[in-house]
Amino acid sequence: MAKKKKILVLNGPNLNLLGKRQPEIYGRLTLEEINGKIRSLAKELGVMVEVRQSNSEGDLIGWIQEAPKQFGAIVLNPAAFTHTSLALRDAITAAAIPTVEIHISNIYKREDFRHNSFIAGAAVGQIAGFGVQSYLLGLRAAAELL
Amino acid sequence: MAKKKKILVLNGPNLNLLGKRQPEIYGRLTLEEINGKIRSLAKELGVMVEVRQSNSEGDLIGWIQEAPKQFGAIVLNPAAFTHTSLALRDAITAAAIPTVEIHISNIYKREDFRHNSFIAGAAVGQIAGFGVQSYLLGLRAAAELL
Amino acid sequence: MAKKKKILVLNGPNLNLLGKRQPEIYGRLTLEEINGKIRSLAKELGVMVEVRQSNSEGDLIGWIQEAPKQFGAIVLNPAAFTHTSLALRDAITAAAIPTVEIHISNIYKREDFRHNSFIAGAAVGQIAGFGVQSYLLGLRAAAELL
Amino acid sequence: MAKKKKILVLNGPNLNLLGKRQPEIYGRLTLEEINGKIRSLAKELGVMVEVRQSNSEGDLIGWIQEAPKQFGAIVLNPAAFTHTSLALRDAITAAAIPTVEIHISNIYKREDFRHNSFIAGAAVGQIAGFGVQSYLLGLRAAAELL
Amino acid sequence: MAKKKKILVLNGPNLNLLGKRQPEIYGRLTLEEINGKIRSLAKELGVMVEVRQSNSEGDLIGWIQEAPKQFGAIVLNPAAFTHTSLALRDAITAAAIPTVEIHISNIYKREDFRHNSFIAGAAVGQIAGFGVQSYLLGLRAAAELL
Amino acid sequence: MAKKKKILVLNGPNLNLLGKRQPEIYGRLTLEEINGKIRSLAKELGVMVEVRQSNSEGDLIGWIQEAPKQFGAIVLNPAAFTHTSLALRDAITAAAIPTVEIHISNIYKREDFRHNSFIAGAAVGQIAGFGVQSYLLGLRAAAELL
Amino acid sequence: MAKKKKILVLNGPNLNLLGKRQPEIYGRLTLEEINGKIRSLAKELGVMVEVRQSNSEGDLIGWIQEAPKQFGAIVLNPAAFTHTSLALRDAITAAAIPTVEIHISNIYKREDFRHNSFIAGAAVGQIAGFGVQSYLLGLRAAAELL
Amino acid sequence: MAKKKKILVLNGPNLNLLGKRQPEIYGRLTLEEINGKIRSLAKELGVMVEVRQSNSEGDLIGWIQEAPKQFGAIVLNPAAFTHTSLALRDAITAAAIPTVEIHISNIYKREDFRHNSFIAGAAVGQIAGFGVQSYLLGLRAAAELL
Amino acid sequence: MAKKKKILVLNGPNLNLLGKRQPEIYGRLTLEEINGKIRSLAKELGVMVEVRQSNSEGDLIGWIQEAPKQFGAIVLNPAAFTHTSLALRDAITAAAIPTVEIHISNIYKREDFRHNSFIAGAAVGQIAGFGVQSYLLGLRAAAELL
Amino acid sequence: MAKKKKILVLNGPNLNLLGKRQPEIYGRLTLEEINGKIRSLAKELGVMVEVRQSNSEGDLIGWIQEAPKQFGAIVLNPAAFTHTSLALRDAITAAAIPTVEIHISNIYKREDFRHNSFIAGAAVGQIAGFGVQSYLLGLRAAAELL
Amino acid sequence: MAKKKKILVLNGPNLNLLGKRQPEIYGRLTLEEINGKIRSLAKELGVMVEVRQSNSEGDLIGWIQEAPKQFGAIVLNPAAFTHTSLALRDAITAAAIPTVEIHISNIYKREDFRHNSFIAGAAVGQIAGFGVQSYLLGLRAAAELL
Amino acid sequence: MAKKKKILVLNGPNLNLLGKRQPEIYGRLTLEEINGKIRSLAKELGVMVEVRQSNSEGDLIGWIQEAPKQFGAIVLNPAAFTHTSLALRDAITAAAIPTVEIHISNIYKREDFRHNSFIAGAAVGQIAGFGVQSYLLGLRAAAELL
Repeated sequence: MAKKKKILVLNGPNLNLLGKRQPEIYGRLTLEEINGKIRSLAKELGVMVEVRQSNSEGDLIGWIQEAPKQFGAIVLNPAAFTHTSLALRDAITAAAIPTVEIHISNIYKREDFRHNSFIAGAAVGQIAGFGVQSYLLGLRAAAELL
Repeated sequence: MAKKKKILVLNGPNLNLLGKRQPEIYGRLTLEEINGKIRSLAKELGVMVEVRQSNSEGDLIGWIQEAPKQFGAIVLNPAAFTHTSLALRDAITAAAIPTVEIHISNIYKREDFRHNSFIAGAAVGQIAGFGVQSYLLGLRAAAELL
Repeated sequence: MAKKKKILVLNGPNLNLLGKRQPEIYGRLTLEEINGKIRSLAKELGVMVEVRQSNSEGDLIGWIQEAPKQFGAIVLNPAAFTHTSLALRDAITAAAIPTVEIHISNIYKREDFRHNSFIAGAAVGQIAGFGVQSYLLGLRAAAELL
Repeated sequence: MAKKKKILVLNGPNLNLLGKRQPEIYGRLTLEEINGKIRSLAKELGVMVEVRQSNSEGDLIGWIQEAPKQFGAIVLNPAAFTHTSLALRDAITAAAIPTVEIHISNIYKREDFRHNSFIAGAAVGQIAGFGVQSYLLGLRAAAELL
Repeated sequence: MAKKKKILVLNGPNLNLLGKRQPEIYGRLTLEEINGKIRSLAKELGVMVEVRQSNSEGDLIGWIQEAPKQFGAIVLNPAAFTHTSLALRDAITAAAIPTVEIHISNIYKREDFRHNSFIAGAAVGQIAGFGVQSYLLGLRAAAELL
Repeated sequence: MAKKKKILVLNGPNLNLLGKRQPEIYGRLTLEEINGKIRSLAKELGVMVEVRQSNSEGDLIGWIQEAPKQFGAIVLNPAAFTHTSLALRDAITAAAIPTVEIHISNIYKREDFRHNSFIAGAAVGQIAGFGVQSYLLGLRAAAELL
Repeated sequence: MAKKKKILVLNGPNLNLLGKRQPEIYGRLTLEEINGKIRSLAKELGVMVEVRQSNSEGDLIGWIQEAPKQFGAIVLNPAAFTHTSLALRDAITAAAIPTVEIHISNIYKREDFRHNSFIAGAAVGQIAGFGVQSYLLGLRAAAELL
Repeated sequence: MAKKKKILVLNGPNLNLLGKRQPEIYGRLTLEEINGKIRSLAKELGVMVEVRQSNSEGDLIGWIQEAPKQFGAIVLNPAAFTHTSLALRDAITAAAIPTVEIHISNIYKREDFRHNSFIAGAAVGQIAGFGVQSYLLGLRAAAELL
Repeated sequence: MAKKKKILVLNGPNLNLLGKRQPEIYGRLTLEEINGKIRSLAKELGVMVEVRQSNSEGDLIGWIQEAPKQFGAIVLNPAAFTHTSLALRDAITAAAIPTVEIHISNIYKREDFRHNSFIAGAAVGQIAGFGVQSYLLGLRAAAELL
Repeated sequence: MAKKKKILVLNGPNLNLLGKRQPEIYGRLTLEEINGKIRSLAKELGVMVEVRQSNSEGDLIGWIQEAPKQFGAIVLNPAAFTHTSLALRDAITAAAIPTVEIHISNIYKREDFRHNSFIAGAAVGQIAGFGVQSYLLGLRAAAELL
Repeated sequence: MAKKKKILVLNGPNLNLLGKRQPEIYGRLTLEEINGKIRSLAKELGVMVEVRQSNSEGDLIGWIQEAPKQFGAIVLNPAAFTHTSLALRDAITAAAIPTVEIHISNIYKREDFRHNSFIAGAAVGQIAGFGVQSYLLGLRAAAELL
Repeated sequence: MAKKKKILVLNGPNLNLLGKRQPEIYGRLTLEEINGKIRSLAKELGVMVEVRQSNSEGDLIGWIQEAPKQFGAIVLNPAAFTHTSLALRDAITAAAIPTVEIHISNIYKREDFRHNSFIAGAAVGQIAGFGVQSYLLGLRAAAELL
């Protein structure tokens, strides 16, 4: 499959706990179950996906830097790094492949310090607030951008 | 078709000019052409849609207030009212049906005064930056919320 | 009855939904029921009242501009326009008849963006937080100002 | 008379000078004359009132703390403490009987540092700008809350 | 007369009261008298003018959107909308004909909230503080821009 | 017992109501019961304690000024004065004996205006959020500082 | 001696400790020694002085309110209340006799929160930074204002 | 010619470079060519003009202070001093003859630090954004003010 | 020993240098010596402790995520991450076992950018300023919370 | 006369107009008349004075730099430079002889942008609001500092 | 070679992409080519250099902590961590060998969030904006500091 | 020597005092001694230099405006004008030859009002904190830019 047809789905810190903690905010599906849904949709859309998660900013930066070699687009849920990591933003700008920023919760309904996104300025666009659907909508957006 | 299966797509001020002005920001499709795409997708998703546009805050408030009688969800592109209209926000809260906020452009890449959304606090979620795809992703999100 | 003895009660956006939506904030009386109470009190105070509502800033500005021809005072619940409409403020200043600003809820207990009133600087005074009593206290204040 | 039927009217710093100083802002009635009007209205409303004034934050806190033993509601003109005393706010919250915040002048027309009220967040509501009528409207509001 | 030679003069909210209210700020000429002066100067400059006023943001947006069909330039006194209407700004940007922003009073000598103009960023330039002369200078500027 | 071995425990405004009001924030123990626990721990630690409370800033300042004559350290719960009293801060600086600032609740989880402490800049350190344990930890800290 | 020839010198919180604490900021003279110098200068200037100190805002307000009965001017060192007490400011405004604000230290060289004076807006003028000379210069200024 | 009929046109720092630098912002006319246009218009308007430029704030202050002896009005392009010189503002206030503030570029479209004008609060009005026309409109405004 | 009886003590970046650098701020004990004291106190309190340090945000997040499997509470000195790491805060919230935030120095006496704690909003409480005692007090607080 | 006994009195921009402009703010005495009073007082105090004024920041900096060669202290009325000139502040710091900052008007009662003094941080102290007396009090303060 | 003669050159996140991405901002040389230039200059200056890069904050902290064992100075290009990493700053302060902060681009010409440096407060000095020359100038500065 | 090979070194206000005042901040070398070092290095680099200093903003603007006629680059130590002079910035932009901004001290370690540079936005780059080396590094940078 051409590189252009592969999408990298990246998850930031604490998202490995999805489904286990604060389900009232983040929903009851585990990351593994979400990945299942992502893979189903990818099949439907005719794209390949690879899903990764890390609590380490350095790992995420490395994956984004390497992404253009293998992938045509990135779907990124930066979690808490959304609001604090300029390094992630710079990696996205440098990678120069379309990146779709997603959030499970509506960050604009939460604490003030979650209303600002350093990532948004480097991403193509942002999808926030639709629970697991945010991933699926993000995948569609990324597939469309390929 | 049950009320639940109908989605109201609302467009705020100046969106009647879509496709004619500043295509570098808003794309080259007219509102009519976008509506065509919306209706195609609606058919595919098995929902009904109605699309309206107004430059008047009062009209938009009225339509949102009346929406629950006929519609199960709203897709709203509030345009410039995003940043200035609390009345629109209050209407959405009062309407109490799910509202998906969309933006053609990535508002976080534009002037500072476009970074704040009064609507986001009342909407289910926000989709911004994907051009005409923002409408289609928004429609999918709304259909999912029905 | 002399013009001086007539009071105009104006309601801003979304107040047509009173009693139907968010009763925990705005109470369970409809605007019509509130109007009934207003009219009873007006009778008791020996004044005439007229009650109007609009979701349109332009309508409210027009009514305020015309008010001095017929009315001696205004009781205004500007709702969401409280925080965003300088045009309403200028209309009140221009009308030059006493205006009493009222709010059903205590706006100072709500979101930060509801703590500022553009209207207060042009009104005689402000009454906020007493539910439907805010209207009745406002009517008394206005009657006293005649 | 039942405790519920007694209302405590409290006046903050410098209000002992009412009628003597800056009558263009605070009116020409002395606190004693205002109290006469308050007592007349109380009689009409069938409630008992007690009126006190102090320049000392500690006194006011003490009176508010003790109020629930004797009174069903408080009408409070916190004067300059409005903008500086969190201790007064905490006392009101602790007292847990309805408190009506009043101001003789429209604080929103005065210096910037008078636009913020620490009290408003703990009071039921606020009445500001009607001169001595603020007390009488406040008394009515409090009587209604009993 | 060629479209290029026609100038649209637009007046925002409350300007229909010119000459009748607050003459110490806005002068003693009515809008009608000002229009007379505008028409005289237009004749002298060899341009056609049309003058309109509305208290409705939606009307103004509509007129600005339609302007390019008939007019070569706009002279706009946005009044209170200067400080609150992004929708008006977007309409000016979309219209893409030169717009001259004018103010009767010197907005920088008035309240802090009148020091910011959302319109200025979309207009060619701004003329403020010269009373009725602001209109005439604005007309000259617009005529020069044709 | 040497002066060095005596610790003054001071309580600011409204803490005389402990255990009676808002137990969800301040716990269910009365100030008297807390004092019992403080005295037990003091015995265990081999120090003497004296516990006082006042709603008056002047009283607290006076006690702090006099403290060095009798006490080797202060444990201070400044309550609402934390955020508003520079005079208390100056008294602590002047007293020049170690002062431990404590709070029953975690002030950083409450309203924004409770996030700033004028006292912290003059105290040795701060303990906040452990309920009655804040007093006991504070006493240990003070005993250690003797 | 005529009332006009009497000057009240007021000292705010913690100034009773002058000369004993933080002499690097406040100097080595006690309040009593400063008073001696004040009285000497008063004699030289042919005015009477009375010097008082309190840690209680209420006391200071009371003294200022009563001052016009006996005194022609006030010299006030508000200490920490400079930055926190609007009630003191209001008392000065109400007293309507000239008040000279003085500070021993140069408050503009100290912490940011000491750079703002609520008192300055109500005082005739301010003298800060000259140690005990601030009192003597303030007395001269007050004597001149009589 | 009567003093009233003479207008002083002042240019602030770096305007001696007009036409030579950054023509995309400041246009292609030199100051000398602009002066030619100013003089032509002055003749047409029947007023005398004198045009000066300096990079020195002190020179400009001196010229403004002396202006009332010879001139009836000032047209001032303060350039960078617009945003930094209170001394210039004070000179204008002191001169007490009408001053028209002009800017070649629309300062509200440029960097944030160019959005504030210290001069505007002392000038009669402001004209900005019309290139060399700003001078000519300013001259007309000044002539009208004579 | 039951999981409930085990406490995890975590140290953030640069704390491996304790005792070696800036002893005037952080004291002269090495992390190893502090650990000795922590273990002694743990024994006394009948709890088990494990102490870890990392300069990597990702490591700390991982340890906090895993903590609930083995530990009943966390004592966390987040060091510089206090002010910059939302990911750490989210990990604490997700871990859902009581976390005690401690600081060796009084962060409120240091640079402005150290006055805000992202951690405090997720921790039970905060202890700051007592040197190595902060660890011991934190351990007691945690033991009490078990 | 020893250098130590000479005081330099410096006046900033626009003070050459004293007595001629805005006497309601700056009084009716000319700078020459004020100088007469300064010289009289100097004689009385046994010091020599030299008084200079300039509208040029560079001149004032030069005079301050040279001052230590001839003078023991400076009395400086920086006028508008108070709020804008860091260069003046640095000159004072470099000169390292005591400088007394004075203002004729009470700058804290005027526009917001006059509330900040860059000079105060480098001066010994500040005297503001006593009209011409500010000079005389400043001279006394400077004489005392010699 | 003595430890004093060795300089550690550290590169923060995304600098491994130098020369490959955004050459209009970061230039066309790869990190390897830059290192070649650094080594040449080091030879010329008679110092040894070691160059490292990491995307991980923890790595950089570790290297800085260890630096004093081997190196006499550090040249640090912190990239995006400049604006977000207090932990890096603390590591520099702890390392207590001179650190020179460098930036390839002029950070003050870029986005607002790049104008603040947490590192600058701990570094000896800062060099920004000279492209690859920033490294060479930084090396010279560091060599001079040895 | 070709114009391109000449570099103008400009020094702002108070730098004529170098070596004489505050040597702990600015070092012990006089401007003359620094110039000697600058000239030595210039010789080594094969460029000509001219060094000037002024306390007058107007002089500096003039020199910068004239620089392109004779010089190929500027090294500018703007001293206090760094933070207050937009006119200097505009002159640099207009001069359109490369300007290197230097500072002897690390301005980011000093008072808050020294953290912002108006010059940086117009300069090629900035070198700060290396004492007299800042000049030499700046000269190298400028020579490289020729």
